This record gives sequence, structure tokens and C-alpha cells, in this order.
Amino acid sequence: MKRTPVRPANAHQATLLRLLRDGGRSRAELGDVVELSRAKLTQELDALIAMSLVQPAGLAASRGGRRSGMVRLSPHLRFAGIDIGATSVDVAVTDGELQVLGHAGEPCDVRDGPVAVLDRALDLLGKLRDQGLFTQLHGAGIGVPGPVSFREGVPVAPPIMPGWNRFPVKEIVSQELRCPAMVDNDVNLLALGELHAGLARQVDDFLLIKIGTGIGCGIVVDGKIYRGASGSAGDIGHIRVDDQGPTCTCGNTGCLEAYFGGAALAREATRAAPRSPYLAQRLADGGRLTAQDVGAAADLGDPVAVRLIRDGGRHTGQVLAGLVSFFNPSLMIIAGGVARLGHVLLAELRSVVYRRSLPLATGNLPIVLSELGDTAGVIGGTRLISDHVFSAG
Amino acid sequence: MKRTPVRPANAHQATLLRLLRDGGRSRAELGDVVELSRAKLTQELDALIAMSLVQPAGLAASRGGRRSGMVRLSPHLRFAGIDIGATSVDVAVTDGELQVLGHAGEPCDVRDGPVAVLDRALDLLGKLRDQGLFTQLHGAGIGVPGPVSFREGVPVAPPIMPGWNRFPVKEIVSQELRCPAMVDNDVNLLALGELHAGLARQVDDFLLIKIGTGIGCGIVVDGKIYRGASGSAGDIGHIRVDDQGPTCTCGNTGCLEAYFGGAALAREATRAAPRSPYLAQRLADGGRLTAQDVGAAADLGDPVAVRLIRDGGRHTGQVLAGLVSFFNPSLMIIAGGVARLGHVLLAELRSVVYRRSLPLATGNLPIVLSELGDTAGVIGGTRLISDHVFSAG
Repeated sequence: MKRTPVRPANAHQATLLRLLRDGGRSRAELGDVVELSRAKLTQELDALIAMSLVQPAGLAASRGGRRSGMVRLSPHLRFAGIDIGATSVDVAVTDGELQVLGHAGEPCDVRDGPVAVLDRALDLLGKLRDQGLFTQLHGAGIGVPGPVSFREGVPVAPPIMPGWNRFPVKEIVSQELRCPAMVDNDVNLLALGELHAGLARQVDDFLLIKIGTGIGCGIVVDGKIYRGASGSAGDIGHIRVDDQGPTCTCGNTGCLEAYFGGAALAREATRAAPRSPYLAQRLADGGRLTAQDVGAAADLGDPVAVRLIRDGGRHTGQVLAGLVSFFNPSLMIIAGGVARLGHVLLAELRSVVYRRSLPLATGNLPIVLSELGDTAGVIGGTRLISDHVFSAG
Repeated sequence: MKRTPVRPANAHQATLLRLLRDGGRSRAELGDVVELSRAKLTQELDALIAMSLVQPAGLAASRGGRRSGMVRLSPHLRFAGIDIGATSVDVAVTDGELQVLGHAGEPCDVRDGPVAVLDRALDLLGKLRDQGLFTQLHGAGIGVPGPVSFREGVPVAPPIMPGWNRFPVKEIVSQELRCPAMVDNDVNLLALGELHAGLARQVDDFLLIKIGTGIGCGIVVDGKIYRGASGSAGDIGHIRVDDQGPTCTCGNTGCLEAYFGGAALAREATRAAPRSPYLAQRLADGGRLTAQDVGAAADLGDPVAVRLIRDGGRHTGQVLAGLVSFFNPSLMIIAGGVARLGHVLLAELRSVVYRRSLPLATGNLPIVLSELGDTAGVIGGTRLISDHVFSAG
């Protein structure tokens, strides 16, 4: 039941599609970038137009001689991004340039298992279809909160996703939506989102640090996700901060996640509540404390909460400083729920990284908070699948 | 005074040259790999033969039909590798397949400055020329023991190379040898040496850890050196092991190099000498102790020396474990002078990495000692420059 494939026939066509994904251009501009003869360029664009992937779009402004014809991606192209979080599911539909046409999300517990959760995601997409946003998708990219075998498109022993181990997510979504699908972990999708629409648009080598319940890192090398030998690259939550630290869920002591991340912060806040009237009240009211409570307390100037954030930021910064010395990124973006603790956290991270990393590696290194918000993951999903669809088959 | 350029005219020719660098092949085999039509392949090979870069080499064994013609790189191709160490200079001349035809080295203090040291290197190459190993070089790759601006081919503020800051090494060597030249740091050249002729021949993503006077890391991604935003990627000597550790030359405390590497090991050995009759005797005889003395003592079963190596290995392993979790390499190779401490060191490194890194990242991860010895750097130099010469101009 798959549709006729719409993938480009060769590497030149693939390059043209990826260039047009960043916006329509004149034939003259495209010719400059891809270094094709005018005849060859015309031939490749005609082929893409015949495949309904590209269409003419009027004349460009003159560059001196004859005005060059504009081309752009077909406005009928549609990609879907599906971002499955620990406690939420988000979907979005974009056009070929990955502009979000519609976005929907709702709370959802990933522990309900793959059948129930994917049903929710497909239902949300169905609503966007009913709104007339698409009839046929050209590809779907899916993020899940755990390790993934990228080639197979299945989660692999994901710690917080009971029932998902080796569930054929890619295959099921591809069948249901009748389009190519790919699955990656949520942190890699955040990095792709930043690469396409966020602070990393002009950056080839950067790190995206997600500080949520756990802590992970998306690594972009030369404009592509670096996944490592077994797909676990960027899994930095269990890097050692200190041998004498708290015991971690992994069985070691002093891992980064044992010091910081949503779970550790909630634990530390509960322990510190007797010293903070605000936290003590929240604990009495709600029965438990979360990272959000610590953030709210810090916003009100609660010194205990500020101290908790700074301590966590310091330990995280110690690990990030090592990664900066090793990887020498052009940019480091901080994202995720705990990152919403904001500038207190950012200041502490920056302070440690700038002090502990090599000066040569930090001389031009911005460390910034993500500005993309909730759509980073779904946009990353559409970037992932469009990279695949816009490559030679 | 530059020779006529011999670089390939297009990407297909470049790919063919890089394939032939690994040994002669039949036209049929080449056609399979590069996916060119037979006519186009013949045209590109004819062009390379006309440029004296490639030559026919008889007929291949039959694959069923007509026997295909063999081709190989011209036996007249010559590359030079120059490996400048802290206390030595090594040169080698290879053919186009990077087989070492001649190798020469001598002690040399890098602190004598660039003019004196490069003179020594060029003299050594002159001797190889006088032996008839070459008349004209097609390229030279140079390694230096410090940070390098790769694009400019100059050392940048190298801590142990007084007088070398921004000295035009690439330009001078290129002029003197009348061929293209490139400069990189010595650790990256070791990694390229392993990629071409060592344990990493079939491996695209690996780390080469050099433990010498200092500690550095060569990072290979997708078969190429990853250098980072400002060229300092892999500079792991100042990653934090512990806040309470020894003060480092960089001004921080507890850096890896403050715990291990040749300088730290010599310092610790001097401190421990009163507890070791062997080390005490060596200290009395020589006035100072080196990493080599510790190795010799360990070989004789001296428990104090074994303890020093294990302690250093443990601290190094703690940093490497973090890099393995982050980078998920396919292979980790240990090289450099201190690496000659051998299996006591290797056992400790393995023990810590396998215990502290993510199981998913270490499941198939070999950690091995380099087997290339003194030629790794010079072979890496020829690999570096041949990658450049065998690319489209």
C-alpha cells in the first residue's frame, strides 16, 4: 500500500531538494551552489518538476542580465514529526520547507506501552488531517525517550519505556501513514530541530544538552547526527562526576544523573524542604516536590532553591567542561525541562565550563538556552525524515 | 618553483586514486566500487595514466569472462612524513601506497626552535634522497607536538615549543621540498597512521589516546580527523579528574595531566623512591627519574612502580570512560611513550572503562595498545598529505 516513491533519482537532485528545503531560490543561485552546467541543472530541475517535488515560482530579481526563474518545493509536500516524551506526545505537520502547518499535543504516559501511545499519536495526526492540513504524507520522523537502533527503527532496552523493547515503531508508523518513517531518540531530534530552525542554523559542529528527567547530549558533526558505533553516542548521564557521590540507578556512584536532572533535583529538594518555608509548603500541599517546584521557588528568590540549582549546575558544568575540551564545539545549546530553570542554571554552567575547559576551546564558544520550546522535537523529526526522503534512493 | 600540479581533475579521479592507495586493483573491481560506466571509468583512468599518477599493471585473474586489466598507482609517486617530537625528529619517504621506502630519525630538542629543527628534518630527507629513494616529492605531511592552525599550517601558542608560535612551517617545508605540505599536531598524525597501517584499518570512528609527556586524543569520525571549531578537539590533558587533585601547569587543580603522563609519573616516582630500593638506586645514579625508570622497575616486579602505574591508569581510565560514554567509539588505541608501560597500564585502563562506561558503549569496544611503533607518526603524515593530493583540486 506504499505510494509511488518520490525520492530523487540522483545526488544532484537530492542536493537541489535540500537547498530548496531552506526556501525557494532562483535557478541562477542554485546553479552557483551546485556547480552544474545550465543545461544539466535544467535537466535535473525538469525531472524534479515532473515528479511533482518542485515547481516554478515566477521570475527572480535581475542580477544584471536576463531574469532567472525562481523554483521552490511543491507546496503539496507534507512531513510529520511525532515526539513521544515520558509524559506527553506531540505531533506536527509541516510543508516541504518544514514550516509547521499544524501542531497538537496531549499528556500521555509512555509506560502505557507502544500500542496505546502510537494510537494516540496517530489520532492526533488524524485530527490534523481532518482539518485539511494533508491528505498524504511524504515521510514521518519519530522521537522516543530512550535508546534506539536507528537502522532497525526500534527502541532497544529503553529504561523508562516498559513494553517498548524492540517494538517495530518505524514499521508500524510507516504502514499506518503509508509513507517512509524513521525513529531516533528524542535528544537527537532536539539537536536536528535546532539545526533546522533554532540557534544552530549556521553551525555544523555543536552539542545539544537536554536536561530533563535524565541528561543526554545530541552530537552534530558536519551537519549530521553522530551516533557512534552502537548508537549510544551522547549518553552522558552516567559520566562520573565524583567517586564519592550519590548512588545512581545504574549501580555506579557519582554519575551526573545521580547529582542532577529532574529526578535528582526532586530528591534534593525534598531533603532540603525543612530549610525552605516555600518548598516545605509545596511538599505539604502536593505530597511531593518536582524540578518545577524548585524553579518556582528560585523565581521567588528562595535561597535554598537557588543553591540547589547552582549545585546541580556546577556538577553538570564539570562534565560539560570535559566534553568541550574533547569535542571543541562551535556552540552548546541547553534544552529540556530542567533547562527552564533558566539563567541561574545557565550562569553556573557557563562559569564552570569557561573556567575548566581549555581557553582555545572556549574562546568563541556560546553556551545558550534553546529558544525553540515545544516544537523542537517535532521539527527535528521532520528534518530527520526529510534528510532521508531528499537523498538519492 | 612549484612543480606542475599532479592533483586529480575531478571527484571520480580522486576516489580512484584513494582506492588505489590501498593497493593495485582490476578495472572491473574499481568499476564495482565507484559505480561508473565502463566507458566513463576508462576515460578517468586514461586521464590519470596521462598525468603519470596511475599505470597499467597486467591482467587480473578471470572473474568468468574476459580478464580485466590491472591498474596501480605510479611507482614514481613519493610522499614524505616528518614527525617532530619534543626530543626527536623522524622522517620517512613512502611510495603512493604509503609503503615506507626509507626512514631516518635522531634525537633533537624542539626547543632549539623551528629553523634549527626543520633544518635537521630536511637534512635527514636529503640523506634519503642521496640514497636514491626519490628525486621529487608529491607531498609532505608534518606533525608537531602542539596545537596547530590546520588551515594556515602554523603552530599556535604551543606550550612546549618556544619560538614556534605562528612560524610558517607549512610554507617553508613546501618551498624547500617544492611540493604541497600540510601540518597537524602529532596526535592527529598518530591516529591517521593507525587508520592507514595500524589497528584501525577497517574502522571509521575511533579514538587514539597518546600518553607521552602530555596526554592527547586523536578523534576519527567517518574516516577523517575531527578537529573541532578551533582545531583543539582531542586536547584531553586538562579534563578534570578531581577538584582536590594536584595543581596543574594550566593553573587548575586535578587535571588529568596533573595525575598522569610522563611528567606526573616522574614526579610521583621521585616522591615514592624512598619506598622502592630500585627507584632509589636509579635516582641516586641518574639524579632524576623518568617514566621509563618506572616501567623498568615495574618489569622487575617492583610493587611501588606497579602501584604508580595502576594509580595513573585509574585516573586516566576515569576520563576515558566519560569519553567512551559520550563518543561511543568502535575502537580505542593507546599509544605514546608512557603507553610502553604496557599491560599493567592497559589492564587498569580497561578495568575502569569497562566498569564506568555505559554497557551499550563498551559491549563491542576493544581497548588495545598501538602496534605501529616509531613509524606511526610519519605514516600518518604521508596519509594526511596524500588525502590532500588525492582530492579534486
